[in-house]
Amino acid sequence: MKNLRGSLLFAQSGGPTAVINAGAAGAVSAAMKNTQVTRVLGAIHGIKGVLTEHLFDLSKEDPKEIELLKTTPSAAFGSVRYRLKNWQDDESDYLTIYRIFQKYDVRFFLYSGGNDSMDTCHKVADYLKHKGYDCAVIGVPKTIDNDLTATDHCPGFGSAAKYLVTSVSELILDAKTYDVGSILVMEMMGRNAGWLTAASALARKNGFGPDLIYLPERPFDLEKCKREVLEIYRKRGCCFLAVSEGIRDAEGHLIGSATAQAYANAHTDAFSHVRLGGVSSYLAAILSAETGAKTRAIEFSLLQRCAAHSASLTDVKEAFRAGEKAVLAATKGETDKMVTFTRLPATKTKAYRLRYDLCPLAAVANVEKKVPDEYIAPAGNDVTDAFIAYATPLIAGESLPPYRDGVPVYARLKKIPAEV
Amino acid sequence: MKNLRGSLLFAQSGGPTAVINAGAAGAVSAAMKNTQVTRVLGAIHGIKGVLTEHLFDLSKEDPKEIELLKTTPSAAFGSVRYRLKNWQDDESDYLTIYRIFQKYDVRFFLYSGGNDSMDTCHKVADYLKHKGYDCAVIGVPKTIDNDLTATDHCPGFGSAAKYLVTSVSELILDAKTYDVGSILVMEMMGRNAGWLTAASALARKNGFGPDLIYLPERPFDLEKCKREVLEIYRKRGCCFLAVSEGIRDAEGHLIGSATAQAYANAHTDAFSHVRLGGVSSYLAAILSAETGAKTRAIEFSLLQRCAAHSASLTDVKEAFRAGEKAVLAATKGETDKMVTFTRLPATKTKAYRLRYDLCPLAAVANVEKKVPDEYIAPAGNDVTDAFIAYATPLIAGESLPPYRDGVPVYARLKKIPAEV
Repeated sequence: MKNLRGSLLFAQSGGPTAVINAGAAGAVSAAMKNTQVTRVLGAIHGIKGVLTEHLFDLSKEDPKEIELLKTTPSAAFGSVRYRLKNWQDDESDYLTIYRIFQKYDVRFFLYSGGNDSMDTCHKVADYLKHKGYDCAVIGVPKTIDNDLTATDHCPGFGSAAKYLVTSVSELILDAKTYDVGSILVMEMMGRNAGWLTAASALARKNGFGPDLIYLPERPFDLEKCKREVLEIYRKRGCCFLAVSEGIRDAEGHLIGSATAQAYANAHTDAFSHVRLGGVSSYLAAILSAETGAKTRAIEFSLLQRCAAHSASLTDVKEAFRAGEKAVLAATKGETDKMVTFTRLPATKTKAYRLRYDLCPLAAVANVEKKVPDEYIAPAGNDVTDAFIAYATPLIAGESLPPYRDGVPVYARLKKIPAEV
Repeated sequence: MKNLRGSLLFAQSGGPTAVINAGAAGAVSAAMKNTQVTRVLGAIHGIKGVLTEHLFDLSKEDPKEIELLKTTPSAAFGSVRYRLKNWQDDESDYLTIYRIFQKYDVRFFLYSGGNDSMDTCHKVADYLKHKGYDCAVIGVPKTIDNDLTATDHCPGFGSAAKYLVTSVSELILDAKTYDVGSILVMEMMGRNAGWLTAASALARKNGFGPDLIYLPERPFDLEKCKREVLEIYRKRGCCFLAVSEGIRDAEGHLIGSATAQAYANAHTDAFSHVRLGGVSSYLAAILSAETGAKTRAIEFSLLQRCAAHSASLTDVKEAFRAGEKAVLAATKGETDKMVTFTRLPATKTKAYRLRYDLCPLAAVANVEKKVPDEYIAPAGNDVTDAFIAYATPLIAGESLPPYRDGVPVYARLKKIPAEV
């Protein structure tokens, strides 16, 4: 597809991050300047905004608000979790998308999200090809989980990692101040991939990092964990654990889920939707009983996803750049691809260098990249130096939003409906 | 007591905060410059460090580390929770303190802490007077709970409040991005005083603040809360609650405690020390069952206590100043007093002005200052504009630690034992 001209549509999908809006800022500002782009539109709530014709005109937004997107967490356009069926099975959604794209002359479609969203993106690209409708479809990667394949890392991961590194340090400083020992079980996101939990190891650089790190990439052995905790607790009087929410035993059962079930059963009458704290509460209870130590479970929960006040400047810049690169790729006529990061070998003057590439969407859709073996210590309770070297540059630099009266200020989009 | 000369001993006590070390930095740097102070000592783990003769020499610390204390959270000297008996009942601890003070010629004793610690401080002052040992004893206020009386506010509160304001905004941005509604129950510290929970209202300044605020100062009526949540949830599709951990029903029972008890009973065999999530998990379960909405409980837990990465610059400066003022008061011969803040009326050029005063320790020891009626909305589910006006200046300005390689750097004290 050469010399495409028409509207560019940008949409956001999946779980929020601290920098998904920085990607939008990069894409929108690049698109505004590009002569092939006749106008820049946003969809409210991702692909659902296309299906329901909730499109807004980004040229009507105050440029100051677009600039503010760089430091605004969550997904300012509105996000969604919606899975498209295969068009061969059910064409109805696709016919709507096709109609809307024609109606607004959408010739560039940028979709920001994780591996589920890349599936959506790929399906749309594939269908439009099938219909012979010229439209460049490009995926913009984002996920705090860092589990997208074909890219060195994902925008969103560095900021979530940095937040966890800082928070873990603060918690350990807090625990260590007392004259009595304690055990902290700190639970981080990652159902199948332990990247975020692994990153908490970077807190050791200031002397206040976790002692033990358990990732979902290794089966979790409760008895082994107890022995490991006890050894450290007896020696140092404290023990700090970083655990992924998704750790499972050798049979594949989520740790803590039986407890959750027992509790839910006991309360079925009163609360049909009861939701217990996860693995950290479970482990904390066991370790407390085992050691008699003061024990705390800390769940970072949604806090780790949107902490723009403690974002990685590297991450913010790379996310912005990924948005720009997506516009560049689309206007060059690339389609059915996702922007990727390739890490280049260090030079004498630059330890960390990145090249922006593209990969086929089909290669990333629905694939989860786990923490590889070379990043996990043989004992299964720690990371390796190779992982530390990998993760260190990703949290470099500090980004925070502007504050007014001590309160962070975020972008407020007017979202004026796009005229046809 | 005029013209005292001798060692100054500084110690920290009670729960950590983001700025208790800023207070230490203020006191230590002022003491180093004061000609009446022959040397500056620290006690490890508060009064326990005195009782066990764990004193260290602050002149042997690198001045850069003392400077770093300004942005280092927790209690770098080591904290403690230790309650002195009345000396009239049991003199043993006091005899030890008296001996150690004589041994190290301690003539200035500064104790940083909350209302329990001010009790310790007062008892020591009182005993030393009784023994006729000239020593100026001054309390340096600190507590995130803001529940010390006789002072406009406490160092530590502004930073914890600022952290909560920012985190609440981020969570609400996260929740609002989706096309499906949700309910968030955000639990904040405050067993008896709701200052921190009240402060979350400041997040409304950027449009992302809580809808309902429940403080321990008002009996919590579950049915009323349900009605209030439902009304908002039905109207807006979302509802955001800020609740103090210590809310109680009209009979004085902690909300959620019965559930905790039921769970504990069901698991007594396996985990004798089981510790459930508190009121937020309980309310989230009930509200989920009631509405069918996606509901999340967020416990800020220890995270709100030590978030130096998101501290209030005003708070850091005031804490530092309070430390300086304590040295000034002690060297002037004041004793058995605590440094207090008095807010002065606004002038044309300055909206917020503070005077540093002193009050008798006996007036603050063991007294809890609750959120007064004029700061609580009549409906009991919100704060008033008067509270917003009170709290706004306390979170002004941003303070964060220096970072190296993307990781915050904290003070590391050598704590070289003091020579006799």
